[in-house]
Amino acid sequence: MLRVGLLGAGRIGAVHASTIAAHPGSALVAVSDINATAAGTLAARHGAEAGDTQAIIDDPDIDAVLIATSTDTHSDLIERATAAGKAVFCEKPVDLSLARAQECQKAVAANGRPVMIGFNRRFDPNFVALKTAATRGEIGKPELLTLTSFDPAPPPVAYVRVSGGLFRDMMIHDFDMANFLMGGAPATVSAVGSAIVDPEIGAAGDVDTAVVTLSYGDGRIAVIKNSRRAAYGYDQRIELLGSKGLLQAQNVLENTVVKSTAEGVTGAKPTYFFLERYMPAYRAEWAGFVEAVSEGAVPPVTLADGVAALAMAEAATLSLRTGAPVPLEA
Amino acid sequence: MLRVGLLGAGRIGAVHASTIAAHPGSALVAVSDINATAAGTLAARHGAEAGDTQAIIDDPDIDAVLIATSTDTHSDLIERATAAGKAVFCEKPVDLSLARAQECQKAVAANGRPVMIGFNRRFDPNFVALKTAATRGEIGKPELLTLTSFDPAPPPVAYVRVSGGLFRDMMIHDFDMANFLMGGAPATVSAVGSAIVDPEIGAAGDVDTAVVTLSYGDGRIAVIKNSRRAAYGYDQRIELLGSKGLLQAQNVLENTVVKSTAEGVTGAKPTYFFLERYMPAYRAEWAGFVEAVSEGAVPPVTLADGVAALAMAEAATLSLRTGAPVPLEA
Amino acid sequence: MLRVGLLGAGRIGAVHASTIAAHPGSALVAVSDINATAAGTLAARHGAEAGDTQAIIDDPDIDAVLIATSTDTHSDLIERATAAGKAVFCEKPVDLSLARAQECQKAVAANGRPVMIGFNRRFDPNFVALKTAATRGEIGKPELLTLTSFDPAPPPVAYVRVSGGLFRDMMIHDFDMANFLMGGAPATVSAVGSAIVDPEIGAAGDVDTAVVTLSYGDGRIAVIKNSRRAAYGYDQRIELLGSKGLLQAQNVLENTVVKSTAEGVTGAKPTYFFLERYMPAYRAEWAGFVEAVSEGAVPPVTLADGVAALAMAEAATLSLRTGAPVPLEA
Amino acid sequence: MLRVGLLGAGRIGAVHASTIAAHPGSALVAVSDINATAAGTLAARHGAEAGDTQAIIDDPDIDAVLIATSTDTHSDLIERATAAGKAVFCEKPVDLSLARAQECQKAVAANGRPVMIGFNRRFDPNFVALKTAATRGEIGKPELLTLTSFDPAPPPVAYVRVSGGLFRDMMIHDFDMANFLMGGAPATVSAVGSAIVDPEIGAAGDVDTAVVTLSYGDGRIAVIKNSRRAAYGYDQRIELLGSKGLLQAQNVLENTVVKSTAEGVTGAKPTYFFLERYMPAYRAEWAGFVEAVSEGAVPPVTLADGVAALAMAEAATLSLRTGAPVPLEA
Repeated sequence: MLRVGLLGAGRIGAVHASTIAAHPGSALVAVSDINATAAGTLAARHGAEAGDTQAIIDDPDIDAVLIATSTDTHSDLIERATAAGKAVFCEKPVDLSLARAQECQKAVAANGRPVMIGFNRRFDPNFVALKTAATRGEIGKPELLTLTSFDPAPPPVAYVRVSGGLFRDMMIHDFDMANFLMGGAPATVSAVGSAIVDPEIGAAGDVDTAVVTLSYGDGRIAVIKNSRRAAYGYDQRIELLGSKGLLQAQNVLENTVVKSTAEGVTGAKPTYFFLERYMPAYRAEWAGFVEAVSEGAVPPVTLADGVAALAMAEAATLSLRTGAPVPLEA
Repeated sequence: MLRVGLLGAGRIGAVHASTIAAHPGSALVAVSDINATAAGTLAARHGAEAGDTQAIIDDPDIDAVLIATSTDTHSDLIERATAAGKAVFCEKPVDLSLARAQECQKAVAANGRPVMIGFNRRFDPNFVALKTAATRGEIGKPELLTLTSFDPAPPPVAYVRVSGGLFRDMMIHDFDMANFLMGGAPATVSAVGSAIVDPEIGAAGDVDTAVVTLSYGDGRIAVIKNSRRAAYGYDQRIELLGSKGLLQAQNVLENTVVKSTAEGVTGAKPTYFFLERYMPAYRAEWAGFVEAVSEGAVPPVTLADGVAALAMAEAATLSLRTGAPVPLEA
Repeated sequence: MLRVGLLGAGRIGAVHASTIAAHPGSALVAVSDINATAAGTLAARHGAEAGDTQAIIDDPDIDAVLIATSTDTHSDLIERATAAGKAVFCEKPVDLSLARAQECQKAVAANGRPVMIGFNRRFDPNFVALKTAATRGEIGKPELLTLTSFDPAPPPVAYVRVSGGLFRDMMIHDFDMANFLMGGAPATVSAVGSAIVDPEIGAAGDVDTAVVTLSYGDGRIAVIKNSRRAAYGYDQRIELLGSKGLLQAQNVLENTVVKSTAEGVTGAKPTYFFLERYMPAYRAEWAGFVEAVSEGAVPPVTLADGVAALAMAEAATLSLRTGAPVPLEA
Repeated sequence: MLRVGLLGAGRIGAVHASTIAAHPGSALVAVSDINATAAGTLAARHGAEAGDTQAIIDDPDIDAVLIATSTDTHSDLIERATAAGKAVFCEKPVDLSLARAQECQKAVAANGRPVMIGFNRRFDPNFVALKTAATRGEIGKPELLTLTSFDPAPPPVAYVRVSGGLFRDMMIHDFDMANFLMGGAPATVSAVGSAIVDPEIGAAGDVDTAVVTLSYGDGRIAVIKNSRRAAYGYDQRIELLGSKGLLQAQNVLENTVVKSTAEGVTGAKPTYFFLERYMPAYRAEWAGFVEAVSEGAVPPVTLADGVAALAMAEAATLSLRTGAPVPLEA
């Protein structure tokens, strides 16, 4: 039984709390948050103790910590927790600063504890099925990848200001998905973007609509499309063209009912947002962490994966500013 | 070049006129109609002559006649045209009276000319693809067939009164399709029906919604569902369950555009009615007739097929009245 | 907190045990089974006690029993449990004998305890969405209902022999669904069936493929199609034609991946069987029971509903034998 | 009746010959080709005369010419035909040289005859429906456009060598479609491409897989994806994200049959290539030309449209070489 301390009792922390509690191989034993009330409420719901972050990190009876705090604390908490011997599961992104994340990566390498980054989409059953089919060679050799990833509605501008920007906050999932499906990072990153959904987002120095093109050394290409607004719900699709065919992972719909009337043939919308869409993925992700830690294996998503995606986000940010493609260091 | 006289210049006659004219192996040379103006207009459009029905039948320069007159004239015209040596293509149904149709069948057998009945759906490319897949054994041994056939809107009650009833007028297509797909007629026919769309249809002694179940001697079953009203257009679907899978022919849609909004995900409706849906089938049907006549082969749909479907319509009519299954004569 | 005793620790019992344990308003406290080992294992998994059936029924600390034993014990256990003051949730069907079920219904009416029958499909989110749309009048007035319900593979013949036959064992779900969607029972039931999937099933006196037509006094019609074998998985679809359109609940698929190759465009199959398809329905069903019992309300599916479906199964069995429609008593 | 001379009797010339002949307002009267036999055969099929190109241009009884010759002759023939007073329909692209096309544009402006460029996809009923919905504001304000355009198989390398490259030969259609849907040309063009399908294409100095990003001054973005190979057929799809929703034009399939077996649920592939997919578009395109010429109106696709698309192809070619975005002149 993996005894787990949860750092951060916000929305995503609450999701993880349920997942930890539901897994037969893990138990939620402690919760901390800068908002003590939130920590207390969440802890109580799962029969855990509310506690202090450092106390959780130091508690020898706790095997692992799940970091679901604000991004600017991630690197520091990863370092402290691994230094204290904990296995760590940390929400994405590793950090807003690539340099800081790389520093963290070195520290972790030194103390040797497993760190897994929460790229939950790698565990979505549909994307897993697509990846499995591709790996089996069902469409021959992959050539052109397209990731469509639209949120249902833009976040508050206050959030945008501290988010690190669309590439680090939102497209980071797609950068990781590209690495997951293509088997490694691209050679160059080219970004185009604008604040067409909400001018306030532009005034805050960010974009809300962006297209990033990734070029690989062997001629493969990937395109990532992000928008902060899809009026019809959370649009999460993948297309992979190969030498022998095309694989598509389509949206998960709210239900299977179709209505045909004089106005047309209408089906349900995609599930609304990430909680609805990715709940099975959150559970599978946690199961992957528990299994890896239990067996002493490398976690299915590593800190290096988190750093690689962050490097792409940084490159895209630079490309957006300069208008030129940005090569990634090999 | 097959020289063709067209008997009947109504809506379906006009469809056939275009098809005859467009086929490289046939020419429309004459048109007759009880409405001389209609005949003249249609003839002029295709560079043909308007003429008298008997004159067309007697004209030695005409090779074939296409009968698209009112149903009550079909048997008589088939007999006269074949007696005069013509190859005949006759719209469905053969007759409203099974006995009269069987009499006609004997007469035709005696004079030996080819007669094809216009069951156009046998030539729909989708249904042909379904039949081909079934024949190839792609779903193993067929077990359960479902035909869904809904018109977009009920006809005028005046039409209903002379139509012979839903089974002879509308479901006759489905009876033929069942025979086409199952390879022969069923053992028994059971009908249920009501006038729920339009009570006036009920007052006229007919039904507008009906379900007919066909039982085959070897345990196979077919279900035919008809409605005179589908607010969303012409609903024409087939499902065939076999020992190794299911084949479905879905509706042909007006276009491929899909709109996703906060209200749902909406695609186009089925094409509106038979002219929109079955135009390729009308062309293929005519090509089949021209080819058979040219090669002296048996037409792809025979007068016997027309009589078989009519026998099922008569059985369904009886079953509806008695409430009991009606066995078909082998 | 509703304290629940589970009678029956087989496959469906295990499903219910998990659902009871996961619901925040109920606790699984005891499990019995004729196989004491099975009861013990299942009880241990959920921290409950294994016990004797009568002891559970008599235990004043237990509020409700869930009956998941063999069908021939249902009526008896319902009577005993309600007599002991328990709220009862009983798996379908109520009984194999309509007379016995009606007798049970009288006994329950006398002792006044709530009894819910486990027609889980009423809680499937897709079917609920279809029903909601129909109730809102989104397709006008309902006219023609089609239920397609195919199992992936036939059960062992030994099971068939004690099952009460396809109508009582399998189509009973569809009879209830028809009642649920149409708002009451039909006037007459007509059945056609055969043992085309497996002659052994025929030798056991049952059918494996059947079509039942239901006629309602107001002209509405319903068709139910059952097959014991669909090579592609569990086929569970509904179509409801109304005066203003059509509602369809389509299958739930294993995933959303579509592969396009030279062989065609291939998507995932339906989920394999009832456990995969209806797990959300089992949870919602149990939540409905807990809520009704907690609030002293009538359960969302009543014993009368169970008896009504059984009456239709009995009528279908008779119709299959006589070949004639069977009227239902109002 | 518009009397038409056809210049070029190759594959696309033959398509146009049929379309001209079938239109009630036009007649094919003459055909020329550098291969006199090809011209003769095609002319004979439609009852036209085979002739010399210059003679056709000079023939006062011919109203219009359709130019379906090799691309390097287009500008010259447009100039000569319009100088001779003909209305002109010319296949895409206008020229391989933007400068030459602009020179041609000036010459045509001087002699004032109508010239239409054959961007047939503007007339595809599905794309027209998408454009109509967008224009009606059904998805609010357009923000992000994606064009997917994959050929079924790469052309011979010999063809690639004289084609002007993927951007001028293939993506030119998509550049025009972007202009059509976005209502004008973008501000900048960024291209990425590789020869991953066939290294021989790379050796010939071209790419076979490319992604081009278009940026508009108002923040809108478009992405075009091209591949010379889609093993499953001609993939022609459009997606337009707007402030209130998404419009998608999906592929046209060979038929509507779906097969469900233990291997999955398989539907038909997209129609194989442009002749199968765009035949209705070719007919509608020609009807648009005949109507415009007959009414003295501006053709629905102008020479300026052809030059605009060519300018984008040239910019993409440059961007591919330099790796930087290329601004378009306003």
